[in-house]
Amino acid sequence: MTIPNLQIALDNNSLSEAISSISKAGPFVDIVEVGTILCLQEGVEAIRCLRALFPKKIIIADTKCADAGGTVAKNCTDAGADWMTVICCATIPTMKAALKEVHDLQVELYGNWTFEEASQWLEAGISQVIYHQSRDALLAGESWGEEDLLKLRKLSRMGFKVSVTGGLTKESLDLFKGIDVYTFIAGRGIAQAEDPATAAKEFKAEIQRIWGE
Amino acid sequence: MTIPNLQIALDNNSLSEAISSISKAGPFVDIVEVGTILCLQEGVEAIRCLRALFPKKIIIADTKCADAGGTVAKNCTDAGADWMTVICCATIPTMKAALKEVHDLQVELYGNWTFEEASQWLEAGISQVIYHQSRDALLAGESWGEEDLLKLRKLSRMGFKVSVTGGLTKESLDLFKGIDVYTFIAGRGIAQAEDPATAAKEFKAEIQRIWGE
Repeated sequence: MTIPNLQIALDNNSLSEAISSISKAGPFVDIVEVGTILCLQEGVEAIRCLRALFPKKIIIADTKCADAGGTVAKNCTDAGADWMTVICCATIPTMKAALKEVHDLQVELYGNWTFEEASQWLEAGISQVIYHQSRDALLAGESWGEEDLLKLRKLSRMGFKVSVTGGLTKESLDLFKGIDVYTFIAGRGIAQAEDPATAAKEFKAEIQRIWGE
Repeated sequence: MTIPNLQIALDNNSLSEAISSISKAGPFVDIVEVGTILCLQEGVEAIRCLRALFPKKIIIADTKCADAGGTVAKNCTDAGADWMTVICCATIPTMKAALKEVHDLQVELYGNWTFEEASQWLEAGISQVIYHQSRDALLAGESWGEEDLLKLRKLSRMGFKVSVTGGLTKESLDLFKGIDVYTFIAGRGIAQAEDPATAAKEFKAEIQRIWGE
């Protein structure tokens, strides 16, 4: 089992806020995500600026693309993104078109996706998915449930690199022990911490403690 | 049966191209859509500029929002959009959060949505859906099929205002005769016509001829 990556999601309403969020924690994370809110607020200029700030880190454009995959992907790549996200209900031709134009593509799992669809993504050459904790569960005050963990394990066994997101704190990482998580995505858990650099370092140390044994 | 609206989708790669596209046809369409590609390229500034150009027309932000519905919707409304789109696999809480922040919300139908889900959207207070011609069908050289038309009729009978999009030309409008279409969405069919103003006027005249009887 490899050591999971740590990704910071920048879901700010402006580029300046995003830059402020990332400036302290940035050096300690593996992957920088230009969140959907930020993409829609500032356009691809946000990708360009984060690439300029972090020339060597993996940059993800979280477009949750549903259509016009080729065009959206090319635009993100041109702006400096390495990877891009598509939504799970996009059609296979849309995903394939996007995959041609980016270094890698991630399918965002929302709503009623099926493992049959997941097999089709694999067949289409897609190797990454992002598993979100159910928002309904989050609103109902629940944490990650056994059903989530079973699905994560199954996706991993199918051959996917699985990223995990949704209300993650460093205290919650233990829940995923024994699962081959590719990346943990944290947003407010790092960006809105009193000391974002320390928060990022503590996340990394906890990942190392659990998966580095 | 009411007369369907005509909507132009601006799926340009830059704001200047979008302004160029709309400058001629704009006065003759009912609704201006800031397309997903344009939203992701230029951010909400694209919405602001189109609102500035068309103070009285309905402006739609085609964000295909999948999460953070409240924030994305508020941002679009603040920039001057009237309506916004969400993707069909967004959760009901995401849709409800978005609906609170915009004048109206449209669900974009992609992939394997079900009529059971559609009933849940109605219960959540959503009255508009956007029906896309299957991209696979389009790639296979097919036009709108009987299955598409059956689904359109069923959505309309359920009580939805149904917008229709995907490879529409004014010659294809006759296919939808007898169906209570709320809006026809055209992109390249108008924007890339030799004379976009005439193309828009001809679309409108054809709609009037078929639905105005």
